[in-house]
Amino acid sequence: MDLVAELRAALPADRVITDPDQLTSFRRDEADLVDDGMPLAVVRPRSTAEVGVAVRIAAARGVAIVPQGARTGLAGAANAVDGCLILSMTGMDEILEIDAVNRIAVVQPGVVNAALSRACLAQGLHYPPDPGSWESSTIGGNAATNAGGMCCVKYGVTTGYVIGLEVVLADGEVLRTGRRTPKGVAGYDLTSLFVGSEGTLGVITEITLALRPAPPQALSLVAVFPTTAQAGAAVNEIMASGASPSLLELLDRVHLRAIEAYRPMGLDTDAAAILLAACDSAQAGAELDAIAALAGRAGATEVFRATDPDEAAALLTARRLAHPAMEMLATSHYARGGLIIDDIAVPRSRLAELLDGIDAIAARHDVIVGVVGHAGDGNLHPNIVVDRGDPASVARGQTVFDEIMELGLALGGTCTGEHGVGLLKRDWLARELGPIGMRVHQSIKTALDPAGIMNPGKVLPA
Amino acid sequence: MDLVAELRAALPADRVITDPDQLTSFRRDEADLVDDGMPLAVVRPRSTAEVGVAVRIAAARGVAIVPQGARTGLAGAANAVDGCLILSMTGMDEILEIDAVNRIAVVQPGVVNAALSRACLAQGLHYPPDPGSWESSTIGGNAATNAGGMCCVKYGVTTGYVIGLEVVLADGEVLRTGRRTPKGVAGYDLTSLFVGSEGTLGVITEITLALRPAPPQALSLVAVFPTTAQAGAAVNEIMASGASPSLLELLDRVHLRAIEAYRPMGLDTDAAAILLAACDSAQAGAELDAIAALAGRAGATEVFRATDPDEAAALLTARRLAHPAMEMLATSHYARGGLIIDDIAVPRSRLAELLDGIDAIAARHDVIVGVVGHAGDGNLHPNIVVDRGDPASVARGQTVFDEIMELGLALGGTCTGEHGVGLLKRDWLARELGPIGMRVHQSIKTALDPAGIMNPGKVLPA
Repeated sequence: MDLVAELRAALPADRVITDPDQLTSFRRDEADLVDDGMPLAVVRPRSTAEVGVAVRIAAARGVAIVPQGARTGLAGAANAVDGCLILSMTGMDEILEIDAVNRIAVVQPGVVNAALSRACLAQGLHYPPDPGSWESSTIGGNAATNAGGMCCVKYGVTTGYVIGLEVVLADGEVLRTGRRTPKGVAGYDLTSLFVGSEGTLGVITEITLALRPAPPQALSLVAVFPTTAQAGAAVNEIMASGASPSLLELLDRVHLRAIEAYRPMGLDTDAAAILLAACDSAQAGAELDAIAALAGRAGATEVFRATDPDEAAALLTARRLAHPAMEMLATSHYARGGLIIDDIAVPRSRLAELLDGIDAIAARHDVIVGVVGHAGDGNLHPNIVVDRGDPASVARGQTVFDEIMELGLALGGTCTGEHGVGLLKRDWLARELGPIGMRVHQSIKTALDPAGIMNPGKVLPA
Repeated sequence: MDLVAELRAALPADRVITDPDQLTSFRRDEADLVDDGMPLAVVRPRSTAEVGVAVRIAAARGVAIVPQGARTGLAGAANAVDGCLILSMTGMDEILEIDAVNRIAVVQPGVVNAALSRACLAQGLHYPPDPGSWESSTIGGNAATNAGGMCCVKYGVTTGYVIGLEVVLADGEVLRTGRRTPKGVAGYDLTSLFVGSEGTLGVITEITLALRPAPPQALSLVAVFPTTAQAGAAVNEIMASGASPSLLELLDRVHLRAIEAYRPMGLDTDAAAILLAACDSAQAGAELDAIAALAGRAGATEVFRATDPDEAAALLTARRLAHPAMEMLATSHYARGGLIIDDIAVPRSRLAELLDGIDAIAARHDVIVGVVGHAGDGNLHPNIVVDRGDPASVARGQTVFDEIMELGLALGGTCTGEHGVGLLKRDWLARELGPIGMRVHQSIKTALDPAGIMNPGKVLPA
């Protein structure tokens, strides 16, 4: 029997997809600049046991296995490789438990982030990680990529909330890691090892999450800066003051102009950058007063305070329009205009240097680059405008991308703050880790996946 | 050349200790019930390079390497094995950097927790993890064991603060993990893998830590409960309310009586338990009012509020006297009386069952057991009184210890909340992890330490 026949024999009929048109739709995530391939088949399992069956069948033939969530990733970690078996986990989408007393949730990997967040909120609880994709991305994908988001400046990233996992290993065996208790030090922290491993060590089939009490509704402000140095200084002053904003985002001039062109909001398009800050504590008003004062002292020419939660939500509109506005900017420049989305994190104190350096790189190569991101965490997303119809433009975009990485590492940063390595940053990872770090990575990969069938070529060379 | 001769040839003269009397003092940490051995030599390195030299010399001969911090551990992870080389890291005790803007510290492993905490506080920063041993234990030891403490109920344990490590591997190579940025997802989370691995995967030679802004001084209260069920219910009500106490500790009746005998403080020795709570937020007063009200509704017969930080500190005296008071209780019962200190964590909702179960186990075996611990985290320390002069008494203590572990696992808990596995809980770890979990642990151990020379027999069988 071939792989497909065996899968069909072992699994319910609707689990196995082999129609070429359908298969094509599973080829890739939302990453640019990276290759994909054609899967041999897609399995949409409904249980851990079914995952185990599919993995054993593929493993017996040495067929590569690529786990997928909602395919909203931006590094190609979910891209198919030719002849692989895709495990699409979106059908395992049950919230198994929300325990308000112990503040934990147990979910299947296909649960959408927003669905879990809302279910928690209904019980007065908070699941903080909020990647941009939160309305569509899955908790399994969030865990596999250690997703970030806007609230991380106060609440941290996904790994801070994953306290236990169920994982189907490369040989089909089921591993349970972690615990249901707030504390626990029994053995190696395998939970954190699997979080962010991008499907290269196993398939996550269940996730136990720590939750927090729901905070009050946030209040927010916008501060406008004539120079990036002042915006960077304001971020540092705010964070050094001991303030704990629940959001501290930056939009640069390219974004301000793109947003104003996309939807006129009266933004100051001569500003070098704006900062958006929000606070969600019991004393949010006083916290924001202090942040406003610090922004003013750092050189903000204007600080606009929202006076109630609805107005605060409205202030975030500019941030939410950043991506569509930049897409429109790209297509208004080029018939086949598009964006290469980068992701870089530096120590907060180097933010202004990173911003100015990106400007210089963009100018040197005559490429439009807009920068938006999680300033409070030193994590920025340069959006590089390219003409997909012109290989020279795409190549220039790639050069800009590489030079930004180079700059970020030189500033003491990391090549990816939250989007992950996938295929996109494999070479940069090798450079960041160095030979010893790579050797240790390879030894752990080999220990858990000796045949190299789990998402091969992602994070590490195949 | 033998090992010692080669170490002496390769390292400065004062680094190598071979005097038998001195060696004896390096045999063990503070754990009970476990074996130790006689080291062949102790090296006290002063640099990462010296650690590398010592590891290479030992590795070339297949000599076991046991890293040690202040030897305040309670699971035997730092115990010597016969013929091993001890690496005593206390001489590498420099705080290399405290960066207030980026809220990070970089330290050598021998820095004492309290020294770092005070240095941070002097800059308005907070390094939260506060194990009971904080005045003597080292950050390297804290990282190797993933130490907890009293503030963890609000601030989490050591692993939440370690963002980067330098580690000398089993072959003497130097690995750097992690980053200096708040966020980063470049590759596997090796940092968290080494944290809590108890020296079995490598020797930690530098630690990069995330810091927080220093909180206001804490305010606190004591609540007195006539039954453990009511104390447990109060913990659950407090945590379910969304309160965020910076400390929520429990002392049982055995402790109350022991403390009152040790130093009369007017404690209610008929109470089943007391809870100590502290809050260190800007609205600590209001938070404590709410906690007091919840404790009252849960059945507290008395709630005593501290009205200023000095009084709040005084309230913690009882908690700090718990250990010496129990030691006195042990020696007042038996000429060679002593304590076996256990460490178990359960979901908070099962606290009352755990407390009552421990009482029943103690009564069944006619052994005195006092319980103190981090109630807000569901993490308790049963202190088992034994007569060291009577093997039957020690055996009964061991039986009680095992039955408490059994109960904790049955309640959905873990065999160690913060003290670690070491030698003491190796069998319980195997039971908690199961065969697949153990196989994965062994495969990672083998990947990083193929010859099995790093702290052999700790956590996993040698």
